[in-house]
Amino acid sequence: MENILTQAKDAREAQLQELIELLRIPSISTLPDHRPQIAEAAQWLAAHMKALGLEEVEVYPTERHPVVYGQWLGAPGQPTVLIYGHYDVQPADPLEQWQSDPFEPQVRGDYLYARGAADDKGQLFVHLKAIEAYLKSTKCLPVNVKLLLEGEEEIGSTSLPQFIAEHQELLQADIVLISDSHILAPDQPSIVYGLRGMTYVELQVQGPDHDLHSGSYGGAVHNPLGALATMIAKLHDEKGRVAIPGFYDRVRPLSESERAELARLPYDEAAFCREAGISATWGDPDYTALERLGARPTLDVNGLLGGFTGAGAKTIIPAQAMAKISMRLVPDQEPHEIAQLFESYIKQITPLTVQSQVRAIHFAEPALLRRDIPAMQAARQAYRAGFGTEPLFTREGGSIPVVTLFKKQLGLDSILMGFGLPDDRLHSPNERFYLPNFYRGIRSSIYFLQALTEEG
Amino acid sequence: MENILTQAKDAREAQLQELIELLRIPSISTLPDHRPQIAEAAQWLAAHMKALGLEEVEVYPTERHPVVYGQWLGAPGQPTVLIYGHYDVQPADPLEQWQSDPFEPQVRGDYLYARGAADDKGQLFVHLKAIEAYLKSTKCLPVNVKLLLEGEEEIGSTSLPQFIAEHQELLQADIVLISDSHILAPDQPSIVYGLRGMTYVELQVQGPDHDLHSGSYGGAVHNPLGALATMIAKLHDEKGRVAIPGFYDRVRPLSESERAELARLPYDEAAFCREAGISATWGDPDYTALERLGARPTLDVNGLLGGFTGAGAKTIIPAQAMAKISMRLVPDQEPHEIAQLFESYIKQITPLTVQSQVRAIHFAEPALLRRDIPAMQAARQAYRAGFGTEPLFTREGGSIPVVTLFKKQLGLDSILMGFGLPDDRLHSPNERFYLPNFYRGIRSSIYFLQALTEEG
Repeated sequence: MENILTQAKDAREAQLQELIELLRIPSISTLPDHRPQIAEAAQWLAAHMKALGLEEVEVYPTERHPVVYGQWLGAPGQPTVLIYGHYDVQPADPLEQWQSDPFEPQVRGDYLYARGAADDKGQLFVHLKAIEAYLKSTKCLPVNVKLLLEGEEEIGSTSLPQFIAEHQELLQADIVLISDSHILAPDQPSIVYGLRGMTYVELQVQGPDHDLHSGSYGGAVHNPLGALATMIAKLHDEKGRVAIPGFYDRVRPLSESERAELARLPYDEAAFCREAGISATWGDPDYTALERLGARPTLDVNGLLGGFTGAGAKTIIPAQAMAKISMRLVPDQEPHEIAQLFESYIKQITPLTVQSQVRAIHFAEPALLRRDIPAMQAARQAYRAGFGTEPLFTREGGSIPVVTLFKKQLGLDSILMGFGLPDDRLHSPNERFYLPNFYRGIRSSIYFLQALTEEG
Repeated sequence: MENILTQAKDAREAQLQELIELLRIPSISTLPDHRPQIAEAAQWLAAHMKALGLEEVEVYPTERHPVVYGQWLGAPGQPTVLIYGHYDVQPADPLEQWQSDPFEPQVRGDYLYARGAADDKGQLFVHLKAIEAYLKSTKCLPVNVKLLLEGEEEIGSTSLPQFIAEHQELLQADIVLISDSHILAPDQPSIVYGLRGMTYVELQVQGPDHDLHSGSYGGAVHNPLGALATMIAKLHDEKGRVAIPGFYDRVRPLSESERAELARLPYDEAAFCREAGISATWGDPDYTALERLGARPTLDVNGLLGGFTGAGAKTIIPAQAMAKISMRLVPDQEPHEIAQLFESYIKQITPLTVQSQVRAIHFAEPALLRRDIPAMQAARQAYRAGFGTEPLFTREGGSIPVVTLFKKQLGLDSILMGFGLPDDRLHSPNERFYLPNFYRGIRSSIYFLQALTEEG
């Protein structure tokens, strides 16, 4: 083990330079004219994986952007871990807000600044470098490893379900390892075991069949903007709880032990308010802010539009009003059922003087990962050894849809071992990666692969 | 009198062709690149007024669009009537919804279709043609006449107060005559004696100081869109009454006789719903729809905006939310006081977890015109003679700000003698003017000028 860790430590300068090389490729998946750069990043990774000693390395074309695959299966009888990552990145605009070129990585202090530094090139690179340390020093790995790197994560992984369906055999494994999240603080590793799901809908309210002059009709025609506002107001009760009948019925209650554990997480209310730019937190007083953020379902209006919104005054009663509404779900809420409950409630609270319509836009299943499986204990050991600190278990407010994909299509649980930090500025200007955690991540990954043999 | 009426009747074809000529000029006041067309319309009118025999005709430049003035003061000892109209028009878009070119007037059936046909070129033309009939047949008018035609009505008459202030002497008169409204039905003339005022505000709600990811912050950060909706919901009570404390305090109660009179107005609920494109009317059940439309104050949300409003899904808690809100006022409500009451109430109902700000955009005084003055009786006689039907007295939901201007700056009452119809589609595609009322309007105007001498 010492050999491997030393090998990794001595290679730090090379590890950084190689990551910088990968980050230079602007593999922005959402821009059609960046297709060549996406292909370039995929080829770069395939070549790099071959050079490390991985086998069956191949760039698989899909309907849109390719999947890069490679494996090392030289540990028969040992568990197989499927490592997932994505090599595509978000667009970099607004460019003028970057202090250095998003695709000319720059080290400033302890940070490496570049688009994709943390999301997700830097984090997937952690595992490549751990594998490299093993293969360079001992020519073998303690477990079997499969690598699946996609190029469409930032545009919804649209081709991935088909790729998985067509490569069920190839992707057979015992556990999935994903590093595409953040830990609580530089010296406080944490393991995400809960992810919220989502039901996203658009609510339309129709008043008159054309815009009316509010002077001539105001007072006798129900204004759809006013009607929509009263309906939205009824989506929460006065304490901030979602008021849709049945909404909480399937929510798995937080156990006392889970609440106690969440309460131990470092959380600074003042710092949270500062970061969000608010004067006070909000929400169901029966739960702590941290519980509400990860372990409880929520409802948010994400957009509102209707009538005249330009400068100055225009006096109309518009024909229509629209709201975009998302509900973050937790186990065992079912996204389609929640959409139905929403729609029934909307029907019930729609005033007779207007019409309403609900259109479903997006669904995602919530996920709660088992913490008692061996791989989870291996992750815990790995963090403890890699960071020198016992990791904490957290639940995330957002969704990582591939977790549900791997569970549904391959029956596999995922371990979310993040190495990013909360202020990495993902999707924003000046995205960065905290370099000490890049190296600690490589150490942790080395420990994780080893621990899998012991725990498995 | 018969001569004059015959003169007017025989000139119908010419009257129509001249109006069409005026309507061909796209004098859209809000579009800066239409300044030459505005000037062209002003010059066209000045030339036309000179040709009719009006004196002191002049195009007065203002800060923006010119005022056209002309007079005939050959009836010393007789009353002087100041006829107001506006030659500017609304933009014509959406163009694709017009059945014929908005600036290439077309007669179809009994209607003349063009932008400005009713609002207000057609209606101001009524009086020019009445004056023409007098001057052509008798070379004199029964009363003194001053004509004031502005080019900024559709953009708030911003230059008019200064023009009036600088031409107090020139504009001295006994009564103002305005034809920029509609009568109840083709065969039912009506005189508007009440106009609602207005307080128009913009309400901003500030949540976090930047847009947040609703997955990461939802449940612990108060969403300003949700907060705005709850605030808007509190602006009315469940019966549709405005819930702002003190809002109704200064509302002059409707007398029993006025209610009885309003109840006699022809009003067909089914037709109203059909015209508005709604299934049922809405509002304070203690008043009839007609009372609510003209004689009671109202509050309407005219616009709502915040967050993500494009296609698909984006999961943000936006930093800000905005509503445009107008309140239609009746005597003796005071627009600035209403703005203060609104702001105090908003302060009171703003949740502690967000900030709100109210910005006043526009104020207009309500007006209630005296029905016992001689000029009002002259208008009544004129309609009776011109249409063969006794006119009804109505209160209008909208505002005609110049009415307040003439009262405040010149001490003059206005007579609102409309010749339009409720379905003239002002400001909308396929604006039109009902031609039989164009000719009856000219007759009525001829009778009005005559009746003024008798009543005055």
